[in-house]
Amino acid sequence: MLAFLSLSSQATAMAVSRRDRVGNGVRCQGAPQGVSKGAFVGRALERATHRWPVPTSVAVPTGRVGHRRVAWLRATATQPTLVKPKQTGDAHADLCINTIRFLAIDAVEAANAGHPGAPMGQAPLAFTLWDKYMRFNPKNPGWANRDRFVLSCGHASMLQYALLYLYGYDRPNMDDIKQFRQLGSITAGHPENYLVPGVEVTTGPLGTGVAQAVGLAIAEAHLAATFNKPDAKIVDQFTYFIMSDGCAQEGVAAEASSLAGHLRLGKLIGFYDDNKISIDGDTDLSFSEDVGKRYEAYGWQVLHVANGNEDLAGLARAIEQARSDLSRPSLIIFRTIIGYGAPNKANTGGVHGAALGADEVRATRDNLDWKYGPFEVPDAALQHFRRKVDEGAKLEAAWKQQLAQYQQKYPELAARFERQVLRQEKSPGWEQALKECAAKQGAMATRQASGAMLNALAPIMPELIGGAADLAPSCNTLLKGTGDFSRHDYAARNMRFGVREAAMTAVTLGMRLHNSGLVPYCATFFIFTDFARPLIRLAALSEAGITFIGTHDSVALGEDGPTHQPVEHLASFRAMPNLYMFRPCDANEVAAGYALSLKSAHRPVILALTRQKVSKVATSSYDGALRGGYVVADHAAAGGTPDLILIGTGSEVEVVLAAADTLQKEDGLRVRVVSMPCVELFQEQDAAYIESVLPQAVPRSKRIACEAAASFGWSRYADHTVCVDTFGHSGKGDEVLKFFGITAQNVTKQARLVAMA
Amino acid sequence: MLAFLSLSSQATAMAVSRRDRVGNGVRCQGAPQGVSKGAFVGRALERATHRWPVPTSVAVPTGRVGHRRVAWLRATATQPTLVKPKQTGDAHADLCINTIRFLAIDAVEAANAGHPGAPMGQAPLAFTLWDKYMRFNPKNPGWANRDRFVLSCGHASMLQYALLYLYGYDRPNMDDIKQFRQLGSITAGHPENYLVPGVEVTTGPLGTGVAQAVGLAIAEAHLAATFNKPDAKIVDQFTYFIMSDGCAQEGVAAEASSLAGHLRLGKLIGFYDDNKISIDGDTDLSFSEDVGKRYEAYGWQVLHVANGNEDLAGLARAIEQARSDLSRPSLIIFRTIIGYGAPNKANTGGVHGAALGADEVRATRDNLDWKYGPFEVPDAALQHFRRKVDEGAKLEAAWKQQLAQYQQKYPELAARFERQVLRQEKSPGWEQALKECAAKQGAMATRQASGAMLNALAPIMPELIGGAADLAPSCNTLLKGTGDFSRHDYAARNMRFGVREAAMTAVTLGMRLHNSGLVPYCATFFIFTDFARPLIRLAALSEAGITFIGTHDSVALGEDGPTHQPVEHLASFRAMPNLYMFRPCDANEVAAGYALSLKSAHRPVILALTRQKVSKVATSSYDGALRGGYVVADHAAAGGTPDLILIGTGSEVEVVLAAADTLQKEDGLRVRVVSMPCVELFQEQDAAYIESVLPQAVPRSKRIACEAAASFGWSRYADHTVCVDTFGHSGKGDEVLKFFGITAQNVTKQARLVAMA
Repeated sequence: MLAFLSLSSQATAMAVSRRDRVGNGVRCQGAPQGVSKGAFVGRALERATHRWPVPTSVAVPTGRVGHRRVAWLRATATQPTLVKPKQTGDAHADLCINTIRFLAIDAVEAANAGHPGAPMGQAPLAFTLWDKYMRFNPKNPGWANRDRFVLSCGHASMLQYALLYLYGYDRPNMDDIKQFRQLGSITAGHPENYLVPGVEVTTGPLGTGVAQAVGLAIAEAHLAATFNKPDAKIVDQFTYFIMSDGCAQEGVAAEASSLAGHLRLGKLIGFYDDNKISIDGDTDLSFSEDVGKRYEAYGWQVLHVANGNEDLAGLARAIEQARSDLSRPSLIIFRTIIGYGAPNKANTGGVHGAALGADEVRATRDNLDWKYGPFEVPDAALQHFRRKVDEGAKLEAAWKQQLAQYQQKYPELAARFERQVLRQEKSPGWEQALKECAAKQGAMATRQASGAMLNALAPIMPELIGGAADLAPSCNTLLKGTGDFSRHDYAARNMRFGVREAAMTAVTLGMRLHNSGLVPYCATFFIFTDFARPLIRLAALSEAGITFIGTHDSVALGEDGPTHQPVEHLASFRAMPNLYMFRPCDANEVAAGYALSLKSAHRPVILALTRQKVSKVATSSYDGALRGGYVVADHAAAGGTPDLILIGTGSEVEVVLAAADTLQKEDGLRVRVVSMPCVELFQEQDAAYIESVLPQAVPRSKRIACEAAASFGWSRYADHTVCVDTFGHSGKGDEVLKFFGITAQNVTKQARLVAMA
Repeated sequence: MLAFLSLSSQATAMAVSRRDRVGNGVRCQGAPQGVSKGAFVGRALERATHRWPVPTSVAVPTGRVGHRRVAWLRATATQPTLVKPKQTGDAHADLCINTIRFLAIDAVEAANAGHPGAPMGQAPLAFTLWDKYMRFNPKNPGWANRDRFVLSCGHASMLQYALLYLYGYDRPNMDDIKQFRQLGSITAGHPENYLVPGVEVTTGPLGTGVAQAVGLAIAEAHLAATFNKPDAKIVDQFTYFIMSDGCAQEGVAAEASSLAGHLRLGKLIGFYDDNKISIDGDTDLSFSEDVGKRYEAYGWQVLHVANGNEDLAGLARAIEQARSDLSRPSLIIFRTIIGYGAPNKANTGGVHGAALGADEVRATRDNLDWKYGPFEVPDAALQHFRRKVDEGAKLEAAWKQQLAQYQQKYPELAARFERQVLRQEKSPGWEQALKECAAKQGAMATRQASGAMLNALAPIMPELIGGAADLAPSCNTLLKGTGDFSRHDYAARNMRFGVREAAMTAVTLGMRLHNSGLVPYCATFFIFTDFARPLIRLAALSEAGITFIGTHDSVALGEDGPTHQPVEHLASFRAMPNLYMFRPCDANEVAAGYALSLKSAHRPVILALTRQKVSKVATSSYDGALRGGYVVADHAAAGGTPDLILIGTGSEVEVVLAAADTLQKEDGLRVRVVSMPCVELFQEQDAAYIESVLPQAVPRSKRIACEAAASFGWSRYADHTVCVDTFGHSGKGDEVLKFFGITAQNVTKQARLVAMA
């Protein structure tokens, strides 16, 4: 190697960015006392020769001010690409792996946008996993017993699209791949589950794929414990995910990985693409922790593959070792060179988030001896990949045979399996159960009504499973008659998520997207939806109908104070697409909220529930609530036009009702009261219905909306609001409400001003 | 011990909650093969005798179905409280420690709300830390060189209030403590920095205190590197925090702890109150990881104190060891019994979140030989605590002397120190720099204009420091002429937060609340404010004026697709109290956004900036933008009433301007165009100004708001919107905008319909 190198000294100030300093070469640590520069460069080069790509430069700090390096001795290689990557040594494997690589390279090039580096580095692992171990049926992506695969580093989406296409899924097809990242194409920049059948979950926000994978694995564990028999394992699949440095830094992945270790999810296997640009981890700009040790601390089996670019046998060994230990999840840390094969850009930031560019694409083709044109797939490779079409069909056929025997032996369980898992039908009778339960409830906190609903559903809906973020008693989420879902009992249905709101929501989302008929819910204080928000949004985007229970839904929660008192949260969720923000006033409306969530298979529902006791509204209506808003009181003569309309939600419905009574009795005003548990649902109603509830004859200037939350957004229906537009205060709930004027007295007062105006 | 125990067998179904099963006793693991129940119970009791509180019951599983325990053999102690806790063995120390405990007990009891258990368990550690090691001046909570203390488990607030009162801070006084959790009192349920001078940061949402403490420590490291000289360490303080199980489970604490380890913040010392209710960690419902090992993986020094209830010497040793290693942060894991001293409720969930109740309070007084009445503070104890008033004054006086010498030797630095740190004045000339910079900019992405502003400020504002969550080049946040803030260079000002949006924001908040004049900013894609949201809210609540830069602020970001395209985010932040959501249309308005953030010392500002290039608006105005909204074009005859008003923000201002031109030229319509970069700021203007911009003569039915984001909230100013109310799509930015109708053509079309209506 030294032969290729000529030394030249230059000062590169700190202004030079890390990546520039590093180039695609190696970088030494600070020169220790008494070590000559020559020896030091030598050592750096020695290290360099042991790896590909051959470094073009080695920079050694030669001067310092305090801890700051101010001058560098840089050794530059004159012929950086003389040595070609040796690849795997298996020509056929290399053909297949490079087929994956170049589909990614060419697609990103055509789009002139995307991330070629990760697919190029991860191709050998992905090929090994999909080719040797993954169980799937390309012609039936929905096969219930398929292994699940999650690409948590979603920016590497072309890796997944290439795999799906090559292994014979109907979509994406070659046209889709050529349309990578184009408007209207299913091959979006990040994998979207609702666009591509073979994509299990939507990834993109780093870390969220890891957390959703934990949810997928939990679903498998629960179904296996529920349906499997010693002589019939009809649920038996692994969940695999690939994560990146970014995923490893995100809190949501940390929370979920801790939970996965606690639950000892032995069929969860993760791959950490350890492709640090700098050789020495401790030169990383922001990330120098020992990820493997951290996962061991979580209780995972941690395995290492030193050369994830070329050592296929090592990758296979690691996967087999991971699969053979079912007592805990496994993380396989495989070192790769990002952009492996690109002679000049490999191992640089340049391949991470941008197309290689025509020259480097050409150079990469030479470097990897790739004789094929853009988007060209060698027959031998395609033939190899496509064998999975038959294999997959056989796998599913064999499983169906197994299922047939199961149906013979365990007809009842089998019937449930077919309904729940295969047809994904909900247990019958849930709506009646909700209505009957509602009828039994009186004045109570709506969180208690919610607990009653859950326990009315639990006995007849074995597919109902969920829990809270260490707040089960406060959120009233415990299901009676079933235990805690734990490593000791995967069949139980009370989940204990710990104080991990983000992971809880991602796990719930993953359980839903396992698409095996589970009806998952999760819960915490409404304020802590802030921690869950990125995952709630992901559920809405993924068209996953999960139920999120948010209790203690206003300043009325009292003494815990402003850090625990939601204000802007209702508005913030009403603005979010494909979500129902539902705030019921009593048990009837709580029942409607659950009905809405059970009917909304593809749209999540958040239930905002009170900590404090509220009255049962005599005129509240399950059906009315399911239209989003409806009239609960009208003091206008039949058909007459009201003088005022008061709109309330949740705990404020009783407030506006009381005010309306006073206004009618004392002022003779004709006041209509509207309960609006779900603004989005109300907006979906036809114009005639909306007019029947909020007639234009009563202009916004004669309407008042009252909600113990931010007024933002109410101007659509009312010019006047009795709301809370500042942060809350610590104090007794009723005193805090009074402080903010969320009282019948104050609404009455405001209404009189509005009426006179 | 056995003498106290009579055996009785009983079946307790899984329905019995963990805490009931555990009682305040010990619980065995599943009986291994071939071990007799008797021996097994014996072993459990043996374990039991080695600890306080004496267990009242020992439950041993005797039957199983699969992994599920269905029957229990329970041994119950007949006289559970015969053995009193031995406490520390130092009568005087116990007097002081119990003074802290009973202030917490009595305050929670009086409020009949709060968390007595944690203060009771943490009192010995807190006493040791504050009494022996913390450097503070009770009569000047703002002393610049004080040690910082953060109670991340904010629900234990009475611990902090008790310490502040006892050590002689003016507030909280005894009346404040008696008003614990009452409306209008400064002793809120969780510590609020804006209510109590001695409270550095607001805590409550678990984990956020840890992350803010990292920010405090970073501020100290940066100031020390900036101002200290070998012979003059005028910045030299530790940052201490106490965390709980809940904090240890939250992702934000994990992200921040990883960053702290990476940065080797040697003067950051954390205490983890390891008070698990179950003896065997692995019996915990949701948390069984090895926290110590995880922190070692982060690069922290991890120390253990086995008996945090009684071993004061051990606590002191650990603190000294932590303080003696300045090469890395330290975590001291101290085992405690929650509610230590309460004979029946100690070590149960019962003491966590509820008052003890009169009986248990009485029993606790007996149990700890506490002869004093409610809120009674023994003279000897008060005397001991209050000595800190003199000591603290002396500490500050000595430091002032040191500072005086520093002023002699280093007058320039000293002058800056006085301005920035002591007077907390911003560097002069920043506003002129912004205006001059704006004047130089042309058509460009507003994120680039933002980068220009940062680099216009950087040279004249040495207190400006910040960075991005691994997106510095995309967010244009790099300051030229300074290096990366790293363990090698704490004086540098470019922060590299890694892919940790939550920790980044918490750290930025902590740096601001160090209250030493730093002007911190942080940045990521606007969409990822979702991950930062709980911390952004905390900044708004804490009245901390930080600058949050959110780039790629709409679907126009293009190919990355819907997971990266913000939609509801502008609305969601406009609904948040004490925050300015600012979306500038060009460099002039970007300059105004920075001016707003520099003027808003107590209100955070989010800047939403475009990825794509936008034109420089000829009529854009720095001063106008600082009023939130203003007229950028008016085709109405001077003084005449416009036919239509078009409102735009950010990249849509040029869109509505172009539409207005067409409408005037082709339709002869008198159209006014309003740019509204900050709705909240506009709402703060006086009625006359608002009327001058949006005259009531042009009703909402004649106004259109155009924004490439959710329409939610615009109804306050316009009945018609050209917005984006669904999730976005992957595609070229301009094509995506066209798809959603965010074009001059479409606005023109809509405007014609409105005009005709």
